Amino acid sequence: MMENEVFASFTFYSTILIIKMYVLAIITGQVRLRKKAFANPEDALRNGGLQYCREDPDVERCRRAHRNDMENIFPFLFLGAIYSLLEPNPIVARIHFLIFCVGRIVHTVAYLLRLKAPTRSVAYSVAQLPCFSMALQILFAVITHW
Amino acid sequence: MMENEVFASFTFYSTILIIKMYVLAIITGQVRLRKKAFANPEDALRNGGLQYCREDPDVERCRRAHRNDMENIFPFLFLGAIYSLLEPNPIVARIHFLIFCVGRIVHTVAYLLRLKAPTRSVAYSVAQLPCFSMALQILFAVITHW
Amino acid sequence: MMENEVFASFTFYSTILIIKMYVLAIITGQVRLRKKAFANPEDALRNGGLQYCREDPDVERCRRAHRNDMENIFPFLFLGAIYSLLEPNPIVARIHFLIFCVGRIVHTVAYLLRLKAPTRSVAYSVAQLPCFSMALQILFAVITHW
Repeated sequence: MMENEVFASFTFYSTILIIKMYVLAIITGQVRLRKKAFANPEDALRNGGLQYCREDPDVERCRRAHRNDMENIFPFLFLGAIYSLLEPNPIVARIHFLIFCVGRIVHTVAYLLRLKAPTRSVAYSVAQLPCFSMALQILFAVITHW
Repeated sequence: MMENEVFASFTFYSTILIIKMYVLAIITGQVRLRKKAFANPEDALRNGGLQYCREDPDVERCRRAHRNDMENIFPFLFLGAIYSLLEPNPIVARIHFLIFCVGRIVHTVAYLLRLKAPTRSVAYSVAQLPCFSMALQILFAVITHW
Repeated sequence: MMENEVFASFTFYSTILIIKMYVLAIITGQVRLRKKAFANPEDALRNGGLQYCREDPDVERCRRAHRNDMENIFPFLFLGAIYSLLEPNPIVARIHFLIFCVGRIVHTVAYLLRLKAPTRSVAYSVAQLPCFSMALQILFAVITHW
C-alpha cells in the first residue's frame, strides 16, 4: 500500500489529524484538572471533593471541538482511503488532503482560542470541500463501473 | 478494489450514509440560525448578541440524531469493509448493506420529524441486524482461519 | 487479507471492541427503561408520560463511556489497519492490539461500575500507548519512504 504515493500521502495527513485529536483529549484533561471540573464523582473525590463534579465552560468548549472532530475527521478517514484507491492524480489528491488537514487544524485552534466568528465556521466549511469532492468522485466511480 | 462487486456495493452505501451525515450537520447549522441558539459566545455575538448563546430542543434533537449516527454508521464502515474482503455471496452482502442504509435513513427521518415511537427505535434495531451478522461472520472467519 | 496474520489478529480485536460498544448501547437503553429517563418526548410518551423526558446520572454515565469509546476505538480502527500493512513483527503487533483491547474493556467496566479513581484513567492511558506507538510508526514509515 505504501508504494501507492496517494495512499501514503493520505495516511500521513490522517495520522497527523488523529494525533491532533489525541492532543485535544490531553488538553481537555488538563483543563479539567486546572479548572477543577470533573464529569464523574469518583474523579472529583480524588481531586478535592464532590463539589468539583461540575460543568465548566472551558471544558465544554474542548469537548465541542473534539466532537466536531469526530463528526468530520472520521468520515475523512473512510472517504480518503477509498478515494486513494481510485487512482486519482497524485497532485490533485494531495491538495484534497492538505486542504482538509489545514482546515481542521485551523478549526481546532479557532475553537480553543475563541477566535472571532466566522473564523471557525470558515475553516469547517473549507475542510468540507475536499470531503464532498471525494464523496462525489467515489459515487461516480461506483456508478460508472456498474 | 472497485473490481470487487461486493466492495463497490459497500462503498456506494457507505458514501451515501456519510453524505446523509453531512446533510444532517448542515440542517443542524440551519436550525441554530433559525432558532437563534448557538453553542459558543463568539457565534452568538455575530448573530444578534450573547443572549443567543443557549440550548434549544430542536438543535439538541439534531445533535442526538447525529451522535447516534456516529455510534452506528462509523462501526459499519469498518465491519462492512472487512466483511467485503471475506468473499461473501454478492446478493447476501448487498442485502446486508441495503438494510443498514435504509434503516439509518429511516432513523434520521424519524428523529427529525418526531415520528411516533417506536418508529425510530425499530429503524435502529433493524439496522443493527446486518451489523451483528457481519461482526459474527468476521469473528468466525478469523477463528476458523487460525 | 485474512492470510495476513497481523491483519487477521487486528480484525479480531477490533470486532470484539465494536461488539463491546454495541453491548454498551444496549445497556444504555436498558438503564433508560429501568430509570425511566428518556431523551425524547415521543419515547417518554410511550413509556409513561412526558415527565420521563429527563436526564439521569446513570444514563449520562453510560453515554460518557460510549463517547469515550468513540474518541478512542474509532481512531484505533484506522491506525491498526494501516499499521498491519507495514509488516510489523506479528508478536509485537499482537501485543499492541491486546493491550488496547484489554485497556478499553477495563475502561468500560471501571466506568459502569464506578471503580475508584484512577482505575478508569489508568486503563485509558495504557490503551493509548499502543495507539501512539502505531501512529509514530506509521509516520516514520511514510516519511522514510518519501
